[in-house]
Amino acid sequence: MDIAFALYRGMTTLDFAGPHEMLAHHPEVTAHYLAAAAGPVRTDTGLEVTATAAFGELPRPDVIVVPGSGEYERVLDDEKELVDWLAAAYPSATWTTSVCTGSTLLAKAGILAGRPATTHWAARGLLEGLGARVSTERVVIDGDVITAAGVSAGLDMGLTLAARLWGERTARAVQLLVEYAPEPPYDSGSLEGVDPEVLAELGRLTARS
Amino acid sequence: MDIAFALYRGMTTLDFAGPHEMLAHHPEVTAHYLAAAAGPVRTDTGLEVTATAAFGELPRPDVIVVPGSGEYERVLDDEKELVDWLAAAYPSATWTTSVCTGSTLLAKAGILAGRPATTHWAARGLLEGLGARVSTERVVIDGDVITAAGVSAGLDMGLTLAARLWGERTARAVQLLVEYAPEPPYDSGSLEGVDPEVLAELGRLTARS
Repeated sequence: MDIAFALYRGMTTLDFAGPHEMLAHHPEVTAHYLAAAAGPVRTDTGLEVTATAAFGELPRPDVIVVPGSGEYERVLDDEKELVDWLAAAYPSATWTTSVCTGSTLLAKAGILAGRPATTHWAARGLLEGLGARVSTERVVIDGDVITAAGVSAGLDMGLTLAARLWGERTARAVQLLVEYAPEPPYDSGSLEGVDPEVLAELGRLTARS
Repeated sequence: MDIAFALYRGMTTLDFAGPHEMLAHHPEVTAHYLAAAAGPVRTDTGLEVTATAAFGELPRPDVIVVPGSGEYERVLDDEKELVDWLAAAYPSATWTTSVCTGSTLLAKAGILAGRPATTHWAARGLLEGLGARVSTERVVIDGDVITAAGVSAGLDMGLTLAARLWGERTARAVQLLVEYAPEPPYDSGSLEGVDPEVLAELGRLTARS
């Protein structure tokens, strides 16, 4: 089973690392790290990860995972090779998936027209403008496409996908392997109902970074 | 604020990526990716990440984050530079932290003698043998050391540490940024109370990989 993890400059590391951890350890899986060109890819914190091949070298993966980025508008303009590869690879893939604003790249590739999908809360308007029917659910399954909300939702998406690929018992075994029994110390993970002070603090944080 | 993320061959990507996402976006933070030598480091799935410097180049980081590995016994033997650097850097660090079996490396560096700490459930006996008082809590804070349980517990640790570094409001803003409102589709994330069938399935998965 060939799983293609799409990499690109400015991507968010955890968007990729969540589903990757849930999927890449399975003995049937060959993980491919693809980008516009093989070589180092700089994520949004400056961390470099290595693409093992160019998109065109794997035209028919079984599963596609597309992470998001905080610079999602720039990325939509810049990542033409990724979008073209997605449009070409989607019809033969068993599952095409995204985390965070990765869904805007699926939409730009024509995969989400009129379909329910989710994204990071900050990009809901953008995703709607690209033709999807935006959901605020954390993980949205529509046919052969699974989209996840922002960043950490990729863990839930990855485990959901593991169950579709290998059955519930295997997914539960993966969950045990990665001890995914989350205990967030606070309850500020959703835009819905968030304290305005927390939203203002996030504005200050991102303005300075 | 210099945060040192320790990298080494065979490390688990999500162990690193969870706290990294919670900490590295803060505008005060300079993230350092350290290993025995600068250059590519191969994780346990074959993914390569790039170390930007050798351990010795950053002798006094403010915060230290040590990920774990599925090959934790080999790692304890192999990662002498990491262990020596930990022993030397710990006294001047504000916070020294680990995810998963990263705590066995802290213990080998002499940091956990007689202290409460946690680790991946599979390595509890090993950690106890290295002199720590093993806890089954997901995140354990003891003075200037924070240890987390397996793999995904690093997200909870990272957010807990963000609150200690910058206050609760900032931690909540980070939680909103990464939409950390987890919805695991199953409840098999803890060894305690796990279905024996799930444990057996995990044995089959890891035997084949």
